Amino acid sequence: MSFPPPGTTAHPAGEVDILIYNALVLTLEPGAAPIINGWVAIQGGKIAAVGSAASFGPPCPSLPPARRLLDAQGGLVLPGLVNTHTHAAMVWFRGLADDLPLHQWLHDFIFPAELRWLDGEKVFWGTLLAAAELIRGGVTTVADSYFYEAEARRALGEAGLRAVAAQGVVDFPAPGVPDPRDNLQVAGEFVESGRHFSPDLMTSTIFCHSPYTCGPETLQQAKALTRKQGLPFFIHLAETRQEVEELQKKTGHTPAAYLDHLGLLDELTVAVHGVWLTPADQDLLARRGVKVSHCPESNLKLAAGVAPIPDLLAREVTVGLGTDGAASNNNLDLFGEMSLAARLHKVWRHDPTTLPAAQTVALATREGARVLGLEEATGTLTPGKAADLVVVDLNQAHLTPLFDPYSHLVYAARAADVRHVMVAGRWLLRDKELLTLDWPEIAGRIRTGGRDLAAFCQNLGRA
Amino acid sequence: MSFPPPGTTAHPAGEVDILIYNALVLTLEPGAAPIINGWVAIQGGKIAAVGSAASFGPPCPSLPPARRLLDAQGGLVLPGLVNTHTHAAMVWFRGLADDLPLHQWLHDFIFPAELRWLDGEKVFWGTLLAAAELIRGGVTTVADSYFYEAEARRALGEAGLRAVAAQGVVDFPAPGVPDPRDNLQVAGEFVESGRHFSPDLMTSTIFCHSPYTCGPETLQQAKALTRKQGLPFFIHLAETRQEVEELQKKTGHTPAAYLDHLGLLDELTVAVHGVWLTPADQDLLARRGVKVSHCPESNLKLAAGVAPIPDLLAREVTVGLGTDGAASNNNLDLFGEMSLAARLHKVWRHDPTTLPAAQTVALATREGARVLGLEEATGTLTPGKAADLVVVDLNQAHLTPLFDPYSHLVYAARAADVRHVMVAGRWLLRDKELLTLDWPEIAGRIRTGGRDLAAFCQNLGRA
Repeated sequence: MSFPPPGTTAHPAGEVDILIYNALVLTLEPGAAPIINGWVAIQGGKIAAVGSAASFGPPCPSLPPARRLLDAQGGLVLPGLVNTHTHAAMVWFRGLADDLPLHQWLHDFIFPAELRWLDGEKVFWGTLLAAAELIRGGVTTVADSYFYEAEARRALGEAGLRAVAAQGVVDFPAPGVPDPRDNLQVAGEFVESGRHFSPDLMTSTIFCHSPYTCGPETLQQAKALTRKQGLPFFIHLAETRQEVEELQKKTGHTPAAYLDHLGLLDELTVAVHGVWLTPADQDLLARRGVKVSHCPESNLKLAAGVAPIPDLLAREVTVGLGTDGAASNNNLDLFGEMSLAARLHKVWRHDPTTLPAAQTVALATREGARVLGLEEATGTLTPGKAADLVVVDLNQAHLTPLFDPYSHLVYAARAADVRHVMVAGRWLLRDKELLTLDWPEIAGRIRTGGRDLAAFCQNLGRA
Repeated sequence: MSFPPPGTTAHPAGEVDILIYNALVLTLEPGAAPIINGWVAIQGGKIAAVGSAASFGPPCPSLPPARRLLDAQGGLVLPGLVNTHTHAAMVWFRGLADDLPLHQWLHDFIFPAELRWLDGEKVFWGTLLAAAELIRGGVTTVADSYFYEAEARRALGEAGLRAVAAQGVVDFPAPGVPDPRDNLQVAGEFVESGRHFSPDLMTSTIFCHSPYTCGPETLQQAKALTRKQGLPFFIHLAETRQEVEELQKKTGHTPAAYLDHLGLLDELTVAVHGVWLTPADQDLLARRGVKVSHCPESNLKLAAGVAPIPDLLAREVTVGLGTDGAASNNNLDLFGEMSLAARLHKVWRHDPTTLPAAQTVALATREGARVLGLEEATGTLTPGKAADLVVVDLNQAHLTPLFDPYSHLVYAARAADVRHVMVAGRWLLRDKELLTLDWPEIAGRIRTGGRDLAAFCQNLGRA
């Protein structure tokens, strides 16, 4: 066997750190075909080369000499998934209260628990729990938006995930910010202290909860702070019909037009949900280059509605997928979001060709990286980008036979099929074992805390 | 510790075959609360008793003496899931062609492959593959409707599943029935030969494909044959808007009214899909006691529509969940159907209280058994019923913390969380290992066959 075979990317001269071979490789570069008998070479935490070999002995002497080898055993190698929106520590509230009217769910359970039960340490441990679930589900990059975000950031750093951590801002008393007059100062200090983290792996920024929970000055000041530093700015937008109607009554604008009026819409703004965007709103977001995070499982569970994703894509708006928090989902599984997104928009449009599988996988990887402004670092298996990747085990009943790997990822695979996960060349999951997190300790802390939370809620009921 | 503790079911005198202990038990009996520190005793393939213990040493000397013990390790024990509709052998076509207009998908891929590539042996191996996926996903009872159904039945029997096998009937050339004049004779012989199978585990009956592919005489004769023997009768009903419009043009009736006109609607008829049922149709199904199989993942993927399930439930129609075949799903995972059903109807009705978690789990178990007329045998963990049950591993990030086991089953759990599966007291899956099926052999046969099928389809493209 000659190496490299004709038509493959040449590998760089000399030794590489890690070679993953015997794989079906999806680079997610636009238009790239699946690579059969593929391999990925990793050097210094980055993708050094991607190619295919005519045949393999394990290890094949004519492959790039590597210090360590991973036989993918015929598995699927693709870029790690990008979760463009979650509130990680809300895993604490997973299944605490479901199937309730939105107002009752928020006011009787979530808000009291957030304000009077949650603290920084709980956010730290909850975020570690979320990180365990995210890694197991093949997520390598996560955008987290919550309170006590310095604690969340510490947990995401320990887990080894690539992350965009955004401190939450509302003009009401919030977890860790009892006096809302302090909210921008807390957020500013959070961004400032982000300098102590590796800029490669961790972005520290701001999440303004929504146009109806933040006043115009707060929105403008927060946006100015992030814009000055070239940081993404997160905001829930047009999630519910009620929110749109109330803001329209108050300001005469749709939420999107209102934010534009305040000067908040640009390429660095990530609008989360966007369920009730009008065609004019969609044109506006397209014109301003605003990015959209689509969270279908949460939107359905809360009966918020169905976001006009095919219309946004037709306008070339950059769209990624998100799980939202586990209080409203109740999982952090992007495979589930892919499956639901691809199916939901088909039935909504009465058209089975809507959101085909390959495009859906792109939303969960390449396009998600673009939503977060991380397209130079991650989202495709491209030489020079970080080695953020997952290996999916294809030797399973529900993934057999195999005709189209994109179809399998969207319509048949599940988070549990992820076997190995790497971020920046570092293994976070090997053979389904978490390498950066102590699961027994996390589980023990969460179970103890969960009993305490259940007692807190029972007392609420009595009060 | 006294045994049995107050308030638990007394265990029968003497020894039992198997005791499952250290479990959180959901019996799915109407109104029953989850049983903490629960146990299930199994004798002669049936549930002997269900109870709870104040504390456990493994094994606790005061539990019912059992010849074999299973420590559920804190896992969730519930009745095995009931898949009320699939075409098992269509796993061959999983991901073969997706995201296409319905007509093109059927006429360019599925129909040619079924008529000219499939044979009885392939149905046998395909059904074994489907059985592997079903068992891994916690299904203990499956209703299969396809062609070469005697081969499918043989495979389902080998797998050890409880099954309702229905030979497909259409008034066109069909797989294994080239001359449609033979269709009822083939179906009749299939039902007749069902006597060689254990009546406890295997029901043999007929599936008429639809009111638009079977003429009125065929429908009436098939129904008469099954009615005479007290067998369930399966038919696709009102799946697409086009089907409804065409039948209305031709007969002046909606599909449901047309079948009623032919005398086909009674307690033994299972109407599959029911997407476009009108309120009058729904009243009619309720009056006749017709059962409905709801297959939301397939309905969305084919953009067929959303079935009016909350309206049917309000009319007290018995509804179960089904996966449909893997050609249109593309998996046989009832956890996915639960998650989608519970979310979809919330957003469709703009009401987050629609189809709450506990009701959704009931559709996938107890109500599914009622759809198939198997409520005396399975669907709840009730003493005297068959020991058809699953153990779900709760020691996982995405199932932590735990406040409500129904919520976790619907909104967070996945097929891969199923650890043990038992049908009629026999283990089909232990510690995620298939005990009745030879996975390497099945996988090898399907992969070889899959390459052959891909070549067949390429030749189709050239022809």
